[in-house]
Amino acid sequence: MNSAESARPITLVIFGASGDLTERKLIPALFSLYRRQRLPQPLQIVGSARRSYTHEEFRAHLRQGVQEYATERFDAAAWDAFSANIWYHAGDSSRAEDMIALDAFLTGLEKGAANRLYYLAVAPTLYVPIVENLGRADMAREDDGWRRLIVEKPFGHDLASAHALNDMLHQVFAEHQVYRIDHYLGKETAQNILFFRFANTIFEPVWNRNYVDHVQITVAETVDVGHRAGYYDQAGVLRDMFQNHLLQLLALIAMEPPYSFDADALRNEKVKVLNSIRPIGPHDAVLAQYRGYREAQGVAPASRTPTFAALKLYVDNWRWQGVPFYLRSGKALAHKTSEVVVEFKCPPQVMFERATDECFPPNVLSLCIQPDEGIHLQFEAKVPGSQRDTRSVNMEFHYRSSFGGAPLPDAYERLLLDALLGDASLFTRSDEIEAAWRLIDPLLRRWEAEEDPHIPLYEPGTMGPVESDEFIARDGRLWRQECNHCAEGASE
Amino acid sequence: MNSAESARPITLVIFGASGDLTERKLIPALFSLYRRQRLPQPLQIVGSARRSYTHEEFRAHLRQGVQEYATERFDAAAWDAFSANIWYHAGDSSRAEDMIALDAFLTGLEKGAANRLYYLAVAPTLYVPIVENLGRADMAREDDGWRRLIVEKPFGHDLASAHALNDMLHQVFAEHQVYRIDHYLGKETAQNILFFRFANTIFEPVWNRNYVDHVQITVAETVDVGHRAGYYDQAGVLRDMFQNHLLQLLALIAMEPPYSFDADALRNEKVKVLNSIRPIGPHDAVLAQYRGYREAQGVAPASRTPTFAALKLYVDNWRWQGVPFYLRSGKALAHKTSEVVVEFKCPPQVMFERATDECFPPNVLSLCIQPDEGIHLQFEAKVPGSQRDTRSVNMEFHYRSSFGGAPLPDAYERLLLDALLGDASLFTRSDEIEAAWRLIDPLLRRWEAEEDPHIPLYEPGTMGPVESDEFIARDGRLWRQECNHCAEGASE
Repeated sequence: MNSAESARPITLVIFGASGDLTERKLIPALFSLYRRQRLPQPLQIVGSARRSYTHEEFRAHLRQGVQEYATERFDAAAWDAFSANIWYHAGDSSRAEDMIALDAFLTGLEKGAANRLYYLAVAPTLYVPIVENLGRADMAREDDGWRRLIVEKPFGHDLASAHALNDMLHQVFAEHQVYRIDHYLGKETAQNILFFRFANTIFEPVWNRNYVDHVQITVAETVDVGHRAGYYDQAGVLRDMFQNHLLQLLALIAMEPPYSFDADALRNEKVKVLNSIRPIGPHDAVLAQYRGYREAQGVAPASRTPTFAALKLYVDNWRWQGVPFYLRSGKALAHKTSEVVVEFKCPPQVMFERATDECFPPNVLSLCIQPDEGIHLQFEAKVPGSQRDTRSVNMEFHYRSSFGGAPLPDAYERLLLDALLGDASLFTRSDEIEAAWRLIDPLLRRWEAEEDPHIPLYEPGTMGPVESDEFIARDGRLWRQECNHCAEGASE
Repeated sequence: MNSAESARPITLVIFGASGDLTERKLIPALFSLYRRQRLPQPLQIVGSARRSYTHEEFRAHLRQGVQEYATERFDAAAWDAFSANIWYHAGDSSRAEDMIALDAFLTGLEKGAANRLYYLAVAPTLYVPIVENLGRADMAREDDGWRRLIVEKPFGHDLASAHALNDMLHQVFAEHQVYRIDHYLGKETAQNILFFRFANTIFEPVWNRNYVDHVQITVAETVDVGHRAGYYDQAGVLRDMFQNHLLQLLALIAMEPPYSFDADALRNEKVKVLNSIRPIGPHDAVLAQYRGYREAQGVAPASRTPTFAALKLYVDNWRWQGVPFYLRSGKALAHKTSEVVVEFKCPPQVMFERATDECFPPNVLSLCIQPDEGIHLQFEAKVPGSQRDTRSVNMEFHYRSSFGGAPLPDAYERLLLDALLGDASLFTRSDEIEAAWRLIDPLLRRWEAEEDPHIPLYEPGTMGPVESDEFIARDGRLWRQECNHCAEGASE
């Protein structure tokens, strides 16, 4: 991209602009960037959807969203200036003629060469027709400025559909134009995993099979499927959480140091990790459903869709050979928490006289993604006044208190800004998304082919089925909830 | 030691019992152990000095000390029970006949076989005559129970005198009977250095020349020489602080893991470290005096005695080759603080785009011995909302808040108990003390042989002379005061 191109005005086109995502996430994020003067200018935002709005009605609708969902105090004057560049164009973009009309509207607005970012905030069924129409209308050609496409999740329903979707996208857009969102990668605490590992000297030397006993990644939700039941019953927890968020977190934890942080260097390393994960055997997964799930509106009465899963993965490479990665996620669980726990091996020798022959408790490093954004390091210290007793104590770092107490920026701020700036490092590349599907796909097919109507159940408000505890206990280990005491009081 | 021997009553004999140490440290420590039911029983305490006291007067004198210096609320009933076993015997133990009289008094009190711990709380000039008289009176023989000797600091005035003192002690006591105190080793936070290193897995792998850039050990006092000027002017900071405390801290930081924590295994490793320190060259030391020192009562008007020193040491072994250890200590400094700072090397590669080409700030681990007993780990974290900026943040562990808020036990509690129990691991062995003198001795001789009346001066209330800052700056480094922000508000 040359500097003339980067200096061009930008048009951000949101397809599905009447939906929740635009109101709750995208516009609040853009407005926050605007207020912090981080939004590239000039920028025009064009919403498109079938519903009819005047420009003013659309702005008023979005203003309500910002007032409701933004974390900062509402600034009316800033909103007026910001929203003067928001427009609405009604149309069904899955119809070729409506797309041509939208393009005419955009061209009229742009009055010359401009860069364009298309955001697919629509149902996955609309990805294909919209992208096809973008192609037919020559709206992906980069003659007059760059053209980029943000694709929301879910990206495919299995390996075959993800692959087909990539193929179709690539008929219209080159890979460098496609920005597949995993909003977990936009979270400050997820990004900080890489800074923690690679901006510091002392953690990387123990970040391998010589010192790490195992890794746990937990992404727990307290909410049940709620109004998303119709979608969820088709997806289940493996598609909804594992194929994307949990495997992305695993990749950040397990990847080798990239030679640079540019998008391809970074994603090459993540793909290497995903490709080196051993296929998941039938005994390396526990799938379960919370009691009452089948009664939810939109759920099939005999649904076998799992709302909880626990997996054991092995990264078969030099660094991680033999180190299990335990992943779990579910709905209607006891705590809303996302955390990565690295449990280290015991010290090689107990040279202290101790009451028992037991090893010392292991060192545990917890990277708390949410809601208590921070880092805990559990280590052993001598109990004062005792001769040789130790006790586990914590060193703690909390993001908010260390950085002025403000809530962390929403993931969408970072991701929208990166897409506007052309930095794809926090977006998922086609080979990356297919590598993740390649892992999850056999598990899905095995599960969906089983006729056994039995599925382990768990009570809402617990941390999953007893089978999940037994699963990790068979390896002599326990699920840890290190960030939990902080998570307890946190809001949903 | 068989169990019959260990079950015998113990007599603790304090020589120099009318002095400060007994009142301020020894009896408060013993009473605290008594209240926590950790004192071996039956135990009788016999004070001896030239001053005449009745038993009751002596107890009343000590009671005042406990009320003044103990950290716990005074418990009169417990004191009465405890002090019923305190006795006083007047005499000049440097006279053989007085020692024989003391022995008769002890024998009368013991009414049979007993173990005895002799505590030399006297001026160093009295060590030799008292020990000789203990020998002449057969009071070191272990026929009827063990006999142990605690020797206070200073232990010798240089290598030759320390060696001569060891020789003389060994004519009367075997080495296993001799407990040389360095009260720094009794501090909980000093002991915790070993637990931090060897009860945990994750620190030892980076505890070497591959990851450590350098180590700093600071023991800073705010007090000036005060009423100790007469003694101090003969000693100076090298004898008063370096030969013992600072080199002991260095040994704990640098030693290899011992195969066990028993006294000899531990001390073998410490001796190995001391013996592997490179002789200190003339350019590896800065000695200085605070302005006004020569005016203090008891100080020679043209005294060249250093009240501050900064040294650079190299531990010439496989683990530490090339890693400088910077040590500094002094009187009349800005802060009362004892800390060990381990500064790690920068990460090997900066893979993030950064505003400058600079390396990241290094990771810094601070072990705060006093007054803020704790551990700080400074590392880099991503600044929220920035693209790729990092900032140094701290993980912190504080002893007091982690262990119920009580003040840590005084070092003398631990050391007295260990000597009573026969655990010499926190006491200095003869070869260890001589190894330390062997390092300091040439420096002393070089300094004392110089005729140059010039000596760098520093202002009281600073952190030493400008030469000290220049000294470390020549290596491209800076003195760190990581525990300082906590130390600021702390009391003397």
